[in-house]
Amino acid sequence: MEKKDIDPQLRRNLLTGGWTIVAPARSRRPGVGEEARRVKSPCPFCPGNERLTPPEVWVESEAPRPKDGPGWNIRVVPNLYPALDASFPPRTWKGGRRALPAGGFHEVIIHSPRHDLSLSRMDPGPAHRLMRAYRLRYRALCRDPRVKQVLIILNHGREAGASLEHPHTQVFALPLVPRAVREELARFRRAATRGCLLCAAVEEARREGRMVLENGTFAALVPFASRQPYETWFVPLRHGGDFSRAGDAELRGMADVLRRVLGGMADLLDDPPYNLWLHSAPCDGSEHAYYHWHLELIPRLAITAGFELASGMFINPLPPEEAAQGIRGIIG
Amino acid sequence: MEKKDIDPQLRRNLLTGGWTIVAPARSRRPGVGEEARRVKSPCPFCPGNERLTPPEVWVESEAPRPKDGPGWNIRVVPNLYPALDASFPPRTWKGGRRALPAGGFHEVIIHSPRHDLSLSRMDPGPAHRLMRAYRLRYRALCRDPRVKQVLIILNHGREAGASLEHPHTQVFALPLVPRAVREELARFRRAATRGCLLCAAVEEARREGRMVLENGTFAALVPFASRQPYETWFVPLRHGGDFSRAGDAELRGMADVLRRVLGGMADLLDDPPYNLWLHSAPCDGSEHAYYHWHLELIPRLAITAGFELASGMFINPLPPEEAAQGIRGIIG
Repeated sequence: MEKKDIDPQLRRNLLTGGWTIVAPARSRRPGVGEEARRVKSPCPFCPGNERLTPPEVWVESEAPRPKDGPGWNIRVVPNLYPALDASFPPRTWKGGRRALPAGGFHEVIIHSPRHDLSLSRMDPGPAHRLMRAYRLRYRALCRDPRVKQVLIILNHGREAGASLEHPHTQVFALPLVPRAVREELARFRRAATRGCLLCAAVEEARREGRMVLENGTFAALVPFASRQPYETWFVPLRHGGDFSRAGDAELRGMADVLRRVLGGMADLLDDPPYNLWLHSAPCDGSEHAYYHWHLELIPRLAITAGFELASGMFINPLPPEEAAQGIRGIIG
Repeated sequence: MEKKDIDPQLRRNLLTGGWTIVAPARSRRPGVGEEARRVKSPCPFCPGNERLTPPEVWVESEAPRPKDGPGWNIRVVPNLYPALDASFPPRTWKGGRRALPAGGFHEVIIHSPRHDLSLSRMDPGPAHRLMRAYRLRYRALCRDPRVKQVLIILNHGREAGASLEHPHTQVFALPLVPRAVREELARFRRAATRGCLLCAAVEEARREGRMVLENGTFAALVPFASRQPYETWFVPLRHGGDFSRAGDAELRGMADVLRRVLGGMADLLDDPPYNLWLHSAPCDGSEHAYYHWHLELIPRLAITAGFELASGMFINPLPPEEAAQGIRGIIG
């Protein structure tokens, strides 16, 4: 990087209590501000362009190959425009609990060498190996004692915030447990004496016509209170709070439901942009047995407007039961 | 409406505890789904087209005029595609606390007869009268005992979710206190022994170079933990929780800061889309003296992606201090 940016800071919103990462380095990524007006540049995630990313962290390859050269099937690199500072800088300012240094890791998992191969069209084997790469990076980053939470996030399509087209997944290793996870943990903990919320949601989806797809290990369902049309949750049928303990059979089942549901949505909704993310328990070594890890997906079909910001609520014009029926119908 | 939709429901998200309004009637509004492909239709908010909206609720006019005819300066109508059901239907299903009928009011305040007159370019007099219309509808809707919270929301630009171009403000009268307000109330209440959070934020913004503009009654500031570049808060300098008690001088000051800051942003950022909303205490007749009503504005310059959904946090590449300096610089 040519220009030295100020260290990223985590700042707490006094009205909401939520955190913002003030990360000046992010402003220089492709598709942001002036960069968007630039001529199309070579894809940094395509084979042969490995020198355009920071040095790789991990790869899957079939044969020996030079580091940061071609010949890989899956490649993991630090994000060139990180939201978090991997050097975990110390606090350089005085006062208060309203800001923290934004130390952490921000990685990119490049799904495959192919620029145009969406997860929905990957073969079962490579898709399964991609899920194994998720687990591998999850485990590795969780092991760092400074990391409190690892989020795995797939943004598909420009309208969903993907600044590069080549299919990839982002991994954020955060120095705190973010509010979205904290809220879920609190709700699961409170409900635990009556059973698991998400185990119950799977049963409920079956009864109420919101189940999209099940295989032996995973379910895909449209939740009762979908925030947006076609919101879908992917839930392992075996209860457990910690993604790092997922077995290979579960990862195979996860790849299967993801591929089929994403394929169905691509057909039904003309390859919609979407955000997909994985929620697992915090990385504190404890098992969080009351919690149930899962993935959530929201296609970006509607613009969230002032109402969502003002209220923290959502308006969804499509009854979840109809959404489930629609996806089921096209998957067949 | 030709087609009978199912009653809108408020459904609670089991993971987050937040509510979604499942509102099938909303899907038929302009710019959504198939309607977007239609030929441009006449603007229902322009004078002469009054029959294209539901019958008016209130108007400001200088001379006597026929109801639902032209001759008005400000016009308030029910939203043709309401997210809430003004008949407050009873619950027609059994079981649980996971769903409620979405009873409430959803109105539109049409700013002026002029199709192309943004709030940023309104004259001081009409802008002040628009703020009075906000207060008038706020007071009227709060008076209904079934209404727990009134939200006033201005979406500007298609990318901010405005489905019609003619400048207008939406008013939502909700049957519950939404989580975004609930969270603020809890934070203000907890901090109350040490003073008001927002009074302190005004002081802090002055000290730290994040104040954009002040007049005798109102301040515009960029918050310490801005969620997005150029997020701005508009804060009455007189402490108080209830917008319905705002005086005329305050409304004049509010119109002034809004006009000038929005004008500055339009110049600086090429008329950016934005969401602007007003947060006031719930409508339960109590004063909520610990709270401080205000407006929040977020320009929609960046796409919020999976990270925001997965974490409930934000990434902002622009240091708030620089944003404040930028807007100040152009307002002069």
